[in-house]
Amino acid sequence: TSSDVLLLQMGWGDLGAFGEPSKETPNLDQMAAEGMLFLDFYTANPLCSPSRAALLTGRLPVRNGFYTTNGHARNAYTPQDIVGGIPDSELLLPELLKKAGYVNKIIGKWHLGHRPQFHPLKHGFDEWFGSPNCHFGPYDNRERPNIPVYRDWEMIGRYYEDFKIDLKTGEANLTQLYLQEALDFISKQQASQKPFFLYWAIDATHAPVYASKQFLGTSQRGLYGDAVREIDDSVGKILNHLQQLGISKDTFVFFTSDNGAALISAPTQGGSNGPFLCGKQTTFEGGMREPAIAWWPGHIPAGGVSHQLSNVMDLFSTSLSLAGLQPPSDRQIDGIDLLPVMLQGKLIDRPIFYYRGNELMAVRAGLYKAHYWTWSNSQEEHSKGIDFCPGQSVSGVTTHTQEEHTYLPLLFHLGRDPGEKFPLSFASEEYQRAVENISGLVQQHKATLVPGQPQLNVCDQAVMNWSPPGCEKLGKCLKAPESDPKKCSWPH
Amino acid sequence: TSSDVLLLQMGWGDLGAFGEPSKETPNLDQMAAEGMLFLDFYTANPLCSPSRAALLTGRLPVRNGFYTTNGHARNAYTPQDIVGGIPDSELLLPELLKKAGYVNKIIGKWHLGHRPQFHPLKHGFDEWFGSPNCHFGPYDNRERPNIPVYRDWEMIGRYYEDFKIDLKTGEANLTQLYLQEALDFISKQQASQKPFFLYWAIDATHAPVYASKQFLGTSQRGLYGDAVREIDDSVGKILNHLQQLGISKDTFVFFTSDNGAALISAPTQGGSNGPFLCGKQTTFEGGMREPAIAWWPGHIPAGGVSHQLSNVMDLFSTSLSLAGLQPPSDRQIDGIDLLPVMLQGKLIDRPIFYYRGNELMAVRAGLYKAHYWTWSNSQEEHSKGIDFCPGQSVSGVTTHTQEEHTYLPLLFHLGRDPGEKFPLSFASEEYQRAVENISGLVQQHKATLVPGQPQLNVCDQAVMNWSPPGCEKLGKCLKAPESDPKKCSWPH
Repeated sequence: TSSDVLLLQMGWGDLGAFGEPSKETPNLDQMAAEGMLFLDFYTANPLCSPSRAALLTGRLPVRNGFYTTNGHARNAYTPQDIVGGIPDSELLLPELLKKAGYVNKIIGKWHLGHRPQFHPLKHGFDEWFGSPNCHFGPYDNRERPNIPVYRDWEMIGRYYEDFKIDLKTGEANLTQLYLQEALDFISKQQASQKPFFLYWAIDATHAPVYASKQFLGTSQRGLYGDAVREIDDSVGKILNHLQQLGISKDTFVFFTSDNGAALISAPTQGGSNGPFLCGKQTTFEGGMREPAIAWWPGHIPAGGVSHQLSNVMDLFSTSLSLAGLQPPSDRQIDGIDLLPVMLQGKLIDRPIFYYRGNELMAVRAGLYKAHYWTWSNSQEEHSKGIDFCPGQSVSGVTTHTQEEHTYLPLLFHLGRDPGEKFPLSFASEEYQRAVENISGLVQQHKATLVPGQPQLNVCDQAVMNWSPPGCEKLGKCLKAPESDPKKCSWPH
Repeated sequence: TSSDVLLLQMGWGDLGAFGEPSKETPNLDQMAAEGMLFLDFYTANPLCSPSRAALLTGRLPVRNGFYTTNGHARNAYTPQDIVGGIPDSELLLPELLKKAGYVNKIIGKWHLGHRPQFHPLKHGFDEWFGSPNCHFGPYDNRERPNIPVYRDWEMIGRYYEDFKIDLKTGEANLTQLYLQEALDFISKQQASQKPFFLYWAIDATHAPVYASKQFLGTSQRGLYGDAVREIDDSVGKILNHLQQLGISKDTFVFFTSDNGAALISAPTQGGSNGPFLCGKQTTFEGGMREPAIAWWPGHIPAGGVSHQLSNVMDLFSTSLSLAGLQPPSDRQIDGIDLLPVMLQGKLIDRPIFYYRGNELMAVRAGLYKAHYWTWSNSQEEHSKGIDFCPGQSVSGVTTHTQEEHTYLPLLFHLGRDPGEKFPLSFASEEYQRAVENISGLVQQHKATLVPGQPQLNVCDQAVMNWSPPGCEKLGKCLKAPESDPKKCSWPH
């Protein structure tokens, strides 16, 4: 059975099937109607790089190294000047699938490090079309180079130069390129009868948001909605292609997101987290609960809905299971195999851990969520207009100082209060029962935790994408400045 | 064609089809899948009585008298001591339908006045099972009588006495009684081959929230969710009954709500307004945008979705149209006939007016909403813990003083910003274009507006439900105090 994982930045509330009021995602809604909707599905981190590392390793960022110790509970990722990346010691999903004869491709944003040793083709992928970093820019190629776009081992151009993104109109045809890559790859694998793993990691809904000309201005929701519509259309075409080729029954497809909608970019460049609190960068539900749809016609019953507490790391374990492989036994794997959930409707009892950098901020068990630390961002950042919770303010919850609640965690019942607005009374029996249970889970988790070497501590201008492999052929090599490694600055 | 209107207090975000994260409304979701979802459907007022008066008269509360002039922009309704009610001069939907041979029944909460002249059977209904007021209580029958339950002309008991509501456990079997009444009425009309209008105005999701024993504890969402589940189950049984009797193709059914979820009652007794701002009592989207589903198998195409700007007054005009009747021509009717929307997928250009008491607070045209006044509630009330926007606070928008914006309305684009968090810049061309358009609509509206005699100004302890008709037979007549009419106090 082949696997497609479709990953992007989108909020829980961005899909019609999840209650977006414009209801402009007919293909994703159809995917949900034909497959299974996961309503309690989480990412591993309220930020992109660590979540992607978690998906591909099946391990929490605190284990696989995708976090920082430069500050307490700081969100860190892989900007151009990051020195670290995915350690060789980590076993990635495509590395493992390769042993079962899979051909693996990544299309889109890698985000697990851009120095030579972190190249996706060194970590199990056979093909790559896309970029190592976000499509921020344009840059002047002096202080900072524009981000390269790779085909396999070599760069074939740079964003804003060879791959246009018009920041004024929001026009860029990248999603169409990514779509065509996906369709071609699927056709090729079908023709060669080889099982495949396609990681379609597109980024049109990540600021700066873009859409192709044919989608610009087509949404009620503005440019962000245009991007969502184009992605929705693309997902429809991918699923249709699988059906046309007659391999839909042999291909497991999962759609989800690496973090909640970035409300900081709202309203024109930011999505919706529906009824949930805050967004990207926070460990409130809006930052980490994700839209999620599993599709596998003939296997997963149509129209299913699951309340399984689940997360991106489960896609690691589930994909291995589909390939008939065992997860590595020499390390802690945080994912679980979701096949019993999808095929037999089982519910597996397991907690969800909400990490921000090096800190376990919150834990969910059943419908209860205990916050051990609360923080949106600093007063200083907030006063500059950086707001991860625009229009939302819950006293003592969306705090602008890091507040520790270790001895009396803030407890919410996410069934009655999905928006995390009404903490349960410390004095109630319900509180005591729930916190006792969660405390046990935390103790167990911490007792066995072996944190990985933090990869996101050191930044250096010299490691930016000055001269990626292949730059000579294109005359696009740039001169790197002197190496000057520093502690990266992570303000929130 | 018969008509069923199912009306209750529920928020936009309370249905699975509208993105409620527990997704516990399979029957309503199925109704939507078989019918048409209205995503931009509004009530006429952020409060119950005025919205119900608007539904039955097809006219804004400011025309039909369901408002107060005791204070500016105050929410008023029909508590027990209200002197006013629906004026005889108003023509109600059942009065008109009667002329076309319809048999009309109201089940549940009437709320259009409880003095003899306001009795629903004096205003076109042929049958009634339910109450004139909300099921608040229990009262001591000295300072305040318990609310009567009527069968047709006479009371047959009182809440908390003969119709039990256990406030401790939340148990009450009223929804089951209302369901049985509905099924029996439908069977009877089908047998007699008479067209009917059934107004199923249940109130289990109105605080104090209740559910029958079999539904207690069955929801992830607590007692409120139990009530929603019971209502969902009941709607499924009503639709199924219509199908079993073979009259579903001759029966138009519409499900909606009289105001947004009462967030003041959250989390245990309050629902969800999804991504929208604030709740009941406010003219933000959370107070007035409602879940709405039209169902008419064989006529309304299955799985339809409409963005028609529409409201409860349209149900008046649509029901008349279904009965082959013309709306009254001697008065202003605010509703429009939605049949072209539902049957031919048309979109009709019309604004939505958001009134609070005697004030036009806001107007929506297309995707733009202009606020002429903003107010959540007073600082004084808010400081007492009365919060219509818990966890939400948008600077300059959710104000605790009445703020006038007549000369520079606050403008939101509800497509890009359904949560009303990011007012458009006054200086933008987009702002100027949209406000110019809306200003024209407001001028036109105000120029022709003839406000009705306000019905909700005077309160008097003597008019409470002391001795409703039928009380003698039951030995349940109570002695009324001396008449002492006063201006009603409407704090928000």
